[in-house]
Amino acid sequence: MHTVHEVMEMSGHIIDSWTLPKAWDTIMDRGGNFDVEEIQVGATKDDTSYVRIKVEAPNDEVLEQIISQLQQLGAVLLHADDVHVTKVEQDGVLPDKFYSTTNLPTQVRLNGQWVTVENIEMDVAIAIDREHTRAYCRPMHDVRIGEEVVVGHDGIRVQPYARARGHDDFAFMQSDVSSEKVKVRAIHNIARQMKEVRAHQGKILFVLGPAVIHTGAGRYVAELIRMGYIQVIFGGNAIITHDVESALFGTSLGVNLESGEQVVGGHRNHLRAINTVRGIGSIEKTIQSGLLREGITYEAHQHNIPMVLAGSIRDDGPMPGVISDMQQAQARMREEVHGVEMSIIVASMLHAIATGNILPAHVRTVVVDINQSVVTKLADRGSFQAAGLVTDVELFLRELVDFLRKEQ
Amino acid sequence: MHTVHEVMEMSGHIIDSWTLPKAWDTIMDRGGNFDVEEIQVGATKDDTSYVRIKVEAPNDEVLEQIISQLQQLGAVLLHADDVHVTKVEQDGVLPDKFYSTTNLPTQVRLNGQWVTVENIEMDVAIAIDREHTRAYCRPMHDVRIGEEVVVGHDGIRVQPYARARGHDDFAFMQSDVSSEKVKVRAIHNIARQMKEVRAHQGKILFVLGPAVIHTGAGRYVAELIRMGYIQVIFGGNAIITHDVESALFGTSLGVNLESGEQVVGGHRNHLRAINTVRGIGSIEKTIQSGLLREGITYEAHQHNIPMVLAGSIRDDGPMPGVISDMQQAQARMREEVHGVEMSIIVASMLHAIATGNILPAHVRTVVVDINQSVVTKLADRGSFQAAGLVTDVELFLRELVDFLRKEQ
Amino acid sequence: MHTVHEVMEMSGHIIDSWTLPKAWDTIMDRGGNFDVEEIQVGATKDDTSYVRIKVEAPNDEVLEQIISQLQQLGAVLLHADDVHVTKVEQDGVLPDKFYSTTNLPTQVRLNGQWVTVENIEMDVAIAIDREHTRAYCRPMHDVRIGEEVVVGHDGIRVQPYARARGHDDFAFMQSDVSSEKVKVRAIHNIARQMKEVRAHQGKILFVLGPAVIHTGAGRYVAELIRMGYIQVIFGGNAIITHDVESALFGTSLGVNLESGEQVVGGHRNHLRAINTVRGIGSIEKTIQSGLLREGITYEAHQHNIPMVLAGSIRDDGPMPGVISDMQQAQARMREEVHGVEMSIIVASMLHAIATGNILPAHVRTVVVDINQSVVTKLADRGSFQAAGLVTDVELFLRELVDFLRKEQ
Amino acid sequence: MHTVHEVMEMSGHIIDSWTLPKAWDTIMDRGGNFDVEEIQVGATKDDTSYVRIKVEAPNDEVLEQIISQLQQLGAVLLHADDVHVTKVEQDGVLPDKFYSTTNLPTQVRLNGQWVTVENIEMDVAIAIDREHTRAYCRPMHDVRIGEEVVVGHDGIRVQPYARARGHDDFAFMQSDVSSEKVKVRAIHNIARQMKEVRAHQGKILFVLGPAVIHTGAGRYVAELIRMGYIQVIFGGNAIITHDVESALFGTSLGVNLESGEQVVGGHRNHLRAINTVRGIGSIEKTIQSGLLREGITYEAHQHNIPMVLAGSIRDDGPMPGVISDMQQAQARMREEVHGVEMSIIVASMLHAIATGNILPAHVRTVVVDINQSVVTKLADRGSFQAAGLVTDVELFLRELVDFLRKEQ
Repeated sequence: MHTVHEVMEMSGHIIDSWTLPKAWDTIMDRGGNFDVEEIQVGATKDDTSYVRIKVEAPNDEVLEQIISQLQQLGAVLLHADDVHVTKVEQDGVLPDKFYSTTNLPTQVRLNGQWVTVENIEMDVAIAIDREHTRAYCRPMHDVRIGEEVVVGHDGIRVQPYARARGHDDFAFMQSDVSSEKVKVRAIHNIARQMKEVRAHQGKILFVLGPAVIHTGAGRYVAELIRMGYIQVIFGGNAIITHDVESALFGTSLGVNLESGEQVVGGHRNHLRAINTVRGIGSIEKTIQSGLLREGITYEAHQHNIPMVLAGSIRDDGPMPGVISDMQQAQARMREEVHGVEMSIIVASMLHAIATGNILPAHVRTVVVDINQSVVTKLADRGSFQAAGLVTDVELFLRELVDFLRKEQ
Repeated sequence: MHTVHEVMEMSGHIIDSWTLPKAWDTIMDRGGNFDVEEIQVGATKDDTSYVRIKVEAPNDEVLEQIISQLQQLGAVLLHADDVHVTKVEQDGVLPDKFYSTTNLPTQVRLNGQWVTVENIEMDVAIAIDREHTRAYCRPMHDVRIGEEVVVGHDGIRVQPYARARGHDDFAFMQSDVSSEKVKVRAIHNIARQMKEVRAHQGKILFVLGPAVIHTGAGRYVAELIRMGYIQVIFGGNAIITHDVESALFGTSLGVNLESGEQVVGGHRNHLRAINTVRGIGSIEKTIQSGLLREGITYEAHQHNIPMVLAGSIRDDGPMPGVISDMQQAQARMREEVHGVEMSIIVASMLHAIATGNILPAHVRTVVVDINQSVVTKLADRGSFQAAGLVTDVELFLRELVDFLRKEQ
Repeated sequence: MHTVHEVMEMSGHIIDSWTLPKAWDTIMDRGGNFDVEEIQVGATKDDTSYVRIKVEAPNDEVLEQIISQLQQLGAVLLHADDVHVTKVEQDGVLPDKFYSTTNLPTQVRLNGQWVTVENIEMDVAIAIDREHTRAYCRPMHDVRIGEEVVVGHDGIRVQPYARARGHDDFAFMQSDVSSEKVKVRAIHNIARQMKEVRAHQGKILFVLGPAVIHTGAGRYVAELIRMGYIQVIFGGNAIITHDVESALFGTSLGVNLESGEQVVGGHRNHLRAINTVRGIGSIEKTIQSGLLREGITYEAHQHNIPMVLAGSIRDDGPMPGVISDMQQAQARMREEVHGVEMSIIVASMLHAIATGNILPAHVRTVVVDINQSVVTKLADRGSFQAAGLVTDVELFLRELVDFLRKEQ
Repeated sequence: MHTVHEVMEMSGHIIDSWTLPKAWDTIMDRGGNFDVEEIQVGATKDDTSYVRIKVEAPNDEVLEQIISQLQQLGAVLLHADDVHVTKVEQDGVLPDKFYSTTNLPTQVRLNGQWVTVENIEMDVAIAIDREHTRAYCRPMHDVRIGEEVVVGHDGIRVQPYARARGHDDFAFMQSDVSSEKVKVRAIHNIARQMKEVRAHQGKILFVLGPAVIHTGAGRYVAELIRMGYIQVIFGGNAIITHDVESALFGTSLGVNLESGEQVVGGHRNHLRAINTVRGIGSIEKTIQSGLLREGITYEAHQHNIPMVLAGSIRDDGPMPGVISDMQQAQARMREEVHGVEMSIIVASMLHAIATGNILPAHVRTVVVDINQSVVTKLADRGSFQAAGLVTDVELFLRELVDFLRKEQ
């Protein structure tokens, strides 16, 4: 049988971190085969290992698939060329064989030199700026005619995700999303990491779903803003409208947050909140007018915390400030994601996925939801840096604030 | 104590359909009180009843809330004026006391004459066209300066939802969303109702989530289109992209639909599908080019079935044809909802809620999902015409097609 | 058409509490018909109403079904005889037409006198002791030859469950089991009710599932025992074994409760805990030996709190004290349920249902679980006194203890 | 630092099957260290590998834990003695250091000879019969004074579970329990495996939960019995009672299985079904009397299929034939599990776990439930041979029967 092949190298903690068995699995699962040309196994857990394998496949397509996956595990082609590029010929359309990114740290070889891809995120293309020897991520709809975009697999190096040891606090949570685990300790760990991130001025992103307000936990988020633990907020029309409704009328979707009673016919206060701000013209003016005096939106405005609010097809209104065009909203999210070191996703599904799509792998992400399937779904989307916490959102935020206050 | 009051009338099957006890509950729960001025109870189940009650409340605000809710139960103010209106003074902003609709059949009194509100949907305003003696629904962001919009509660009549008897097949399903019920029979009922709707040329709307493709059930939807059982499709970027990916490459998010194996690195085929169509320019041209030859999108195009595809913040691409602006997308959905008599919502959450928001109450709606909380959530949103079916989406569609085929 | 009929009376808040419309629904849903012979509707919410209706049915069987259901709504046959009885002819077997109880307060007429049925619980028979003019509940397997058991529907009066107004704190929770509600306030309400019950020496029952220990919340339950807020505990082999394992080894199913790490191969400590107590002979002796010094089991023993532990088919061991025979275990639960005024069911499914089966309707029951379907399932089983709280079990117990401590 | 150590060997597909990296992980996670004394890596996927490692730990306890876990991965102590044993000194109590089994094929060394442990199941002890050179599993409560029970880790060899390749149909399902997968194909695979098992007279076990009857799917199970695809049934009081209720009255918990309507007050028919059979004396006599003429129980009796029905604390009745004592019930299950090669668990949680506890790892097990958390929970309990299918139970059984019928 005629086969094609390439030789690849891997090094580092490739056995300890299960990288090597994953690589062999990949090759065999795809219908390829391999020869171990050289292997040096580290004798203790501190030593690194090295392997050089010849990867065989029945045809070019399979070989390419295998190489693509091995690259995500950190394998590098032995005789790597410079990265290959093709010019974009149509706005918003990528060349056929475009390289699709992971959210892992990635380098491309330009003129024999390894250059780090800027603003890495997953499922986008890499554009090359030869003049300045730079490379950066480009979503499909953003590419313009004449741009050089990476194709194929040559000259690409991905730094695989190092599996954390069991003793790492974050790892503890990552291992499992079960609701039957000690949660108080996990919450305290999250709080400590937030303090650590803030100690060196790192940014913390909160992605908020409307249940944060329904459960009366908006006050805790407002407090976190005042305490300096939130630098960016992502959300949608619902969270801001519920928040403003609760600040103006004390209700969320018509339910009184103090008494738990439905105070008026369904949706009325919700619409009134939107209509009031639309009448005044903007959230800023509503605050200046003295009408909006508390809540997440108010605190965010007072502390210059950007809120990127992306609309959705189910929205009423929308509330001024909510971005109706999805490409614009994504662009705004991409802008604000710079410098984020930790992200905490609370009771959100839609905006959580959108955020997961653009976060680099190194951002420590915590997904908190009472529904296990939401937590699992987010963790399954390739956002492998995400730790899940299946718990009550209101009690989570209450405990988080409590602990951070005591520590101060 | 000083109180305010109004006298209201209710008639029809108000006891049998629990309308009267609900009304009394409402009054008391809101802190009001009532006197039954006259009551005539029908002696048998076929007789109707009549009641005239004096509603008291501690102040105008509470009275207004009570009246607002009683109107939704079909109560009419005894000394009803013509409907009151206020002119819009700012584009996209409603007058303060705007009347917020339900999705129930609604009439307003213009010059002493009851006029039916056109295109009724919930949580929007009613605009008046005096010249042509017409009234129609208007979402907040669509109102323009000078339009007359209904305010307060005078001159409004709502036809309450008549609770179906237990013997009604649809009622059977509506009673409960449990997964522990006989489903085959419910599926056959749905099929029969689809036939009935089509027998008089009524339109059937399908709202589709991406799991329809992941589970390999796209073929059944395509077959339903060919059989003439789908007249409109609502969905998002995911459903069309998965559908095209599956038609072009045989995969859905990279998973081979035949073998169940992951054939290439995650998202790659997904992006390629979008990129291919973007390169050609449109779905239409991709079909004309002979490249796209099967699937839901193909069949919809061949049978002139409109697909309204609303974008979302989590989208890749998007696929040409997907509407990125949320107001535009809602407007398109409102256009296509005319004439729909039955809607079947399968494995969708986001687009399901958006659809529920604009459907009138008389449209028979079935929500099918394997996740009970999704079904419950949709049923809880005031879309009280919705029947829930907690079952496997793939097997549901397979059985539906099977039954409809046998009946032909 | 030949029909059969009976005349029944209802009085009280039968409209306000929806009893009357429910009655009419029942009649029609079962295929019967009715004539309202007399109706007096209370004019305000404080007045009671009265209705006398003639119930018609096509045959005796349907009539009996209708009467059976109307009785559960509080209707009484107009020309009521004394209760009818039949002698048991075979141990553990009821007469054919035995009356099956609800968990609502029930009276039977003996010699023209209404006698309250003792130890009411649902789905059992009523035995009559003529000599002492008493009536009491008897599970099927407990009846003995010669006992007189109630049959048919004559001479039976059920006091329907009065639907609480919206302003009642407990009602607030009962209305809905949604996870998207303010929970802190609900927890504080529960705490206040516990104090109230204890203020007059009422008993509080806790039903505990193993997740209480897995999540590290055993310490809060132990504290509640010390504070005097628990008088009875129901559970199974898992809760006691996890509790003892955690007290002896600091793990629960091998997971260290401090660090969250799996410390030994799966189940080993679990089995060792059981084996250790089996070796010593009993929990009591293990405590006396000084080996078991903390935890729920230890505190329960120190405070003379009965723990009824019912085995199940999935058990290892079992731990001494766990009852292996199901009839014996039910009998023990029935004994300890006397005097219970409030029951709190935490993270338990199997024992929760068993408890719900034997609790009278007047016991205020709170079901706490992170899984909405568990809460819904329990509420659906006819235990209509149950309020559901979808929240994190660990954080629930922590907040409960916290609030009760502050209040002291 | 003073350390203790042992040398262990592993061989086979230890890299390909991830056994080696798991072993190294285990050592490090437990706080140990290792030296690779010798390693031979197979160069292609068909070659096996060999490794000899020196395992170090800070103390004997940790070393023992590590060895215990490595044994489950197939590692063998280099200088293995004969197995060590200790005599039982108290009925139902194991010696302190008893070896706790896995459900994997296990051998012990007796007089230098490797002897296979009979009736292997997890979390029990191993008893030795020196006279006949045999070893077999013994649950804790079954051991008797004087029996020799295995302690420590010497002389024990476990055959690790070989991870199936991606191309294996069963592996496809095992990889994931997602509800968003093609299910029809998975069902057909299960059907094919059932045929295969029956082709060589292997036994198929069905574990059935009550939802099988509620959803009207009892008829499909009855048909599977008639077709010869069921050799053993495990379940509880609920499944048999619902089945008999449905055969006698056409209802399940009072819900008519044809019309879906509630025909009588809740539980009445349920209790009548039990009472009827109790009155007659047994299921057998009820069938002989001609009263019970269809359903699962009937067919099982006609085809001599043993039904092991274990009671539970929530039971009414119970139905004659249901075993009230848990130790007896487990003993009966252990008897009937012999020869089972495939087990299909449908809509059951309690009995599913009990079954999982006693099945050897080689039995191909499929867990079918509409609730993903049930499927996940069962898969997580160390029953690693279980494949999960999140789908509708009724439609699953319907499709299964359909496919098997067509194939005949």
